[in-house]
Formats: sequence, C-alpha cells, structure tokens
Amino acid sequence: MKTFNEISQLVANELEKINWNKEPKGLYEPIGYVLSMGGKRIRPALALMACNLFSEDLQAVVRPALGIEIFHNFTLLHDDIMDKADVRRGKPTVHKRWDDNTAILSGDVMQIAAYQLIADTPANVLKPVLDLFSQTAAEICEGQQYDVDFENRENVKAEEYLEMIRLKTAVLLGCALKTGALIGGAGEKDAQNLYDFGINIGLAFQLKDDLLDVYGDESTFGKKIGGDILNNKKTYLLIHALKLAKGNDLQELQNWLNIAEENQSEKKIKVVTSLYNKLGAKQICEEKMEFFYTKAIANLEKVSVSTNNKQELRNLAEKLMLRND
Amino acid sequence: MKTFNEISQLVANELEKINWNKEPKGLYEPIGYVLSMGGKRIRPALALMACNLFSEDLQAVVRPALGIEIFHNFTLLHDDIMDKADVRRGKPTVHKRWDDNTAILSGDVMQIAAYQLIADTPANVLKPVLDLFSQTAAEICEGQQYDVDFENRENVKAEEYLEMIRLKTAVLLGCALKTGALIGGAGEKDAQNLYDFGINIGLAFQLKDDLLDVYGDESTFGKKIGGDILNNKKTYLLIHALKLAKGNDLQELQNWLNIAEENQSEKKIKVVTSLYNKLGAKQICEEKMEFFYTKAIANLEKVSVSTNNKQELRNLAEKLMLRND
Repeated sequence: MKTFNEISQLVANELEKINWNKEPKGLYEPIGYVLSMGGKRIRPALALMACNLFSEDLQAVVRPALGIEIFHNFTLLHDDIMDKADVRRGKPTVHKRWDDNTAILSGDVMQIAAYQLIADTPANVLKPVLDLFSQTAAEICEGQQYDVDFENRENVKAEEYLEMIRLKTAVLLGCALKTGALIGGAGEKDAQNLYDFGINIGLAFQLKDDLLDVYGDESTFGKKIGGDILNNKKTYLLIHALKLAKGNDLQELQNWLNIAEENQSEKKIKVVTSLYNKLGAKQICEEKMEFFYTKAIANLEKVSVSTNNKQELRNLAEKLMLRND
Repeated sequence: MKTFNEISQLVANELEKINWNKEPKGLYEPIGYVLSMGGKRIRPALALMACNLFSEDLQAVVRPALGIEIFHNFTLLHDDIMDKADVRRGKPTVHKRWDDNTAILSGDVMQIAAYQLIADTPANVLKPVLDLFSQTAAEICEGQQYDVDFENRENVKAEEYLEMIRLKTAVLLGCALKTGALIGGAGEKDAQNLYDFGINIGLAFQLKDDLLDVYGDESTFGKKIGGDILNNKKTYLLIHALKLAKGNDLQELQNWLNIAEENQSEKKIKVVTSLYNKLGAKQICEEKMEFFYTKAIANLEKVSVSTNNKQELRNLAEKLMLRND
C-alpha cells in the first residue's frame, strides 16, 4: 500500500512526462500552460488509491487516472471562457493570455487527449471504464448547464442545487475511484461503494467550498472571500437564507441582492454573512456537509478490504473536509 | 451489397432515432438543431459501405458511423464560433441563435456523444477503432489550428496547404472507411488501403471545394461564390497564383489582396478569378485534384474484394468529384 503522498508524487511525475511540446504550438502550448498551473491532483490520486486497495501494481491505472485529471483541467479551461474569468490560481487564464478561439480549440484537443489516456485502460475493463467516463463527462456538462441556467432563475431549490453540484463536481470523484477500482480488479459491489464514497465526498467537498468562499481566510483560500455573495450565486447558503428569512431580514437580503455597486462590496459581504449566521444558513450548510461526509465514510466502510488498508482514503476524505484552501 | 442510396437512407433513419430531447434543454436542444440542418452524411455512409465490402451485417457499424457524423457536426459547431460564421446551410448558426457559451458547451457534449457511439464498437476491434478515432479527432483540431495560423502568415507553401486540408478534412473520411472496414472484419492491408482511399478522396474533395468557391454556380453551390477570394483565403489557387505571378500580374494581385472595401467586392472576385485563369492556377488545382482522385481509385483497386462489389464506392467517389454543390 502506498501513502497519499507517495501516490501524489507518482501522479505528478507521470503527468510531467506527457509531452505537450508538439506542433502546431498554438494548439498544444496552452495545454502545457494549464497543467503547469498546478492543482491538488485529487482525482488521479483517488484513482490510484482505489486501485491500490485491490492491487499492488499501479502501472495500469496511471494513464486512465491522468486522463481524468486532463479532462478536469479541460472543463476548467472551457468554464473560464464561459465565466469570463481572467485569473486562475494567480495566473491569467488561457483565453486571457491567448484568446477565446485558442481556448476553445485547445480545450477540444484536451478532451481528446483525455480519451486517449482512458483508452489505455486494460482490455478486460476497457468498455465499462470508457462508458463510465463518457457518462461522467456528459454529466459534468449537464451540471455546468444547470449552473448557468440557475443564474437566471429566482426559485432554485436546495435539492436542485445539490443535484447540480453532484453533476458538476461529485461524479468525477466517483468516476476516478470506480475507474481505479475496476482496473485494480474490484468486484462490482466494491467498485460501486467506492463510486458512492466519491459522490458523497464530492458533495461535502463542494459545500465546504461554498462555506470557505464566505467564511474562509483569504491568505490560505487563494481567492477573494465573498465572491459568491457579490455574484448573488445561488449557493446552498443563499438558497436556505432566502427560504428562512422573513419580514425585515428578507427585505434586507433582497435589497442587497439588488445592489451591485463596487463601493458597496465590503458592506454587502458583511451584511449578507451576518444574515447567513443569524438565519442559521451557515449551520444548515455545515450540517449537510457533515451528513454527506458521514455517508461517504459509511460507503468506504462497506468496501471489502481491511480497515487498515482504507486508512489513507479515510485520511484524505478528512483532510478535504478540514481544509482551509 | 447495399447501394449508396439504401445506405444513406439507413444512416438518416438511424440518426433520426437518437433522442436529443433531454434535460437540460439548453445543452441538448442545439445538438438536435445542428443535426436537423441536414448535410450529405458522406462519412457514416462511407463507414457502412466499407463495412459492407466485408460483411452483410451492418448493425455493428451503425453506431460508430453515427459517432463519426456527430463528431463532424461538432467540429462545424465550434468552427462556426471561431470563424464568427452567422449562417450554415441557410440557417442561423448555434452561437448566433443561442450564444457563444451555449455553442461551446453543446459542442463539448456532442464530442462526448460521439465517443459514446464509438464505444459501441464490437469488443474485438474496440481498441484500434477508438485509437484511430482519437488520433483522427486530434488531427482535425491540428488542421483547424494550421488553418487559423495560415491566416496570419504570408508565405504558406502549397505542401503546407495540402497537409492542412489532409488534417482538417481528409483524415475523417479515411477514419470512417477504416472504421467500417475493421468492424466488417477486413484485414489490416485492406483497412489501410481504404484509409488511403479516403485520404486521397478527401484531398480531391477539398480542392474541388476550393474550385467551386470560385467557379461554382451560386444557385447549386448553396453559398456565395468568391467568398475565399474576398477573405484572401490562402487556398491552393491563391498560393499558386502568388507563386506564378510576375511583374504587373503580381502587382495587381497584391493590390487586390489589400482591398477590403465592400463596394469593390464584385470587381475583386472578377479580377482575381481572371488572374487565376491567366496564371494557370485553375489548371494546376484541377490537375492536382485529378492526381488525388486517380490515387484514390488506385487505392480502392488494391482492396481485395471483387471489382463489382467496389462499384458503389467508385461511383460515390466520382460523384463527389463531379458535384457542383
């Protein structure tokens, strides 16, 4: 059994080995750039860790795991065009450093590169891994579309929000884990429990992200606190605040949702945050996060390998919940 | 053996059966729209015809063939954003009817849908078909990138242009034919000869397109004649005209390349066309088209099935060369 740190190092080394220094440069250079921005590489690590539960040989899972990471980075690349985001991880985004057309086309070829890596799955599980990957990839696009749709809808329900983040974020974690499990030789039941573990960790992970965006520490979180509040993003916090607020609180919250002046930003963040606290939205979000985390741990417990061998995955899940970045 | 018309009908029926009426509508509706615009469906027809050379059972090739057609339509969708093209086949393009973000995301999920169909290739040839498809898909992106790069380059060589159209257009015809052959049970040699047949037909097809853009009949061609000339597109015709022109001819050609006024459009098309004629660029392009067509037919002749059974493919190749639309 390898530790998370050993696996992370292995993933980083293997990702480094892929050559993006190819012609035409205008197509491949942005891919090298995006991947050089870094990131936690959680998804390929999950694939390798899941594989490692069932097999000591991790060679066969490396390329499919990298395919999942490259697909993830492709979605960030195209999302950044759609969101008109100029900066990611402190660096100019591809469409900013190059242009929209470059970002579209480089993203397209990244998606193909992801499939090329997935296609190197051992023949005996190629079809189920490929189908799972495609289904997941389509679901991520669906999640992104719902996210966009929600911007123009007033009445987004908490359940709809959870379904959106399941699609947009959680399914790729589930896919990574199940892919690793299948390649490692797991049975269908274990593979499914690991998939469900990924879904529930993913949901908890995203709720944690929503909480950090409001309650995080700017110095460790890596982006400005309060961005979701300023964008009126319909997060689990806002959806519940709107549902719970009555009378003056509701009036005040709705007034602030209509204020977009930049010189009011700090005040807007401050007032909306106190409303989240007062209305109990913060607590509801934290409880829901705990709920999914507990479900995830229960899914992991059902996986038929020794408790000891599952410790690294349990530690990682805990780390993702306790993170402040 | 089925005729081309029978196969076209089969392709149209099977394409019709795919359900795009799914949620979220904003993601899937544009795909149904794009596919409803029509098109010759040459690529899936080629896949079925190639399969039919080796097998009477075409069921196994249908879904991969549709995957190739959907991939082709995905490239048109994203190319139209990049080219800021407002109209395709007489209808508003997706980014015009919806918006850029919709066109990006619907295109992304179309690419995934293409892979889902390719993944239904029979297990015994899944890996080679999948690898060929991914390689082809990446090459098409490379071709598009070269096409974009050439816009800002003065000195594009004829060989570079041919390599660009090989990547952008020809490889998908080759891929369709080889996919059909592999699924039909062809040996590697026959599959490769059919691939080469596709490459050479594709090159001839694109040179024919360049010729039609200048010498076609607007009423049958379906788009305005002279578009390439007005855009100073570095086609095989222009590249050769620039290479052959001397003295006053060169001066005149270069002057017209610098003229972009709309009220000069008709005159520009007329003068540049006569220069193509005078300099022999038209003849060179026609001869090169014939050259690739002849090579294609030679590739087809090498395929180890009866001449009679290859007649439909030979007819189709001829039709593509003699077409005026």
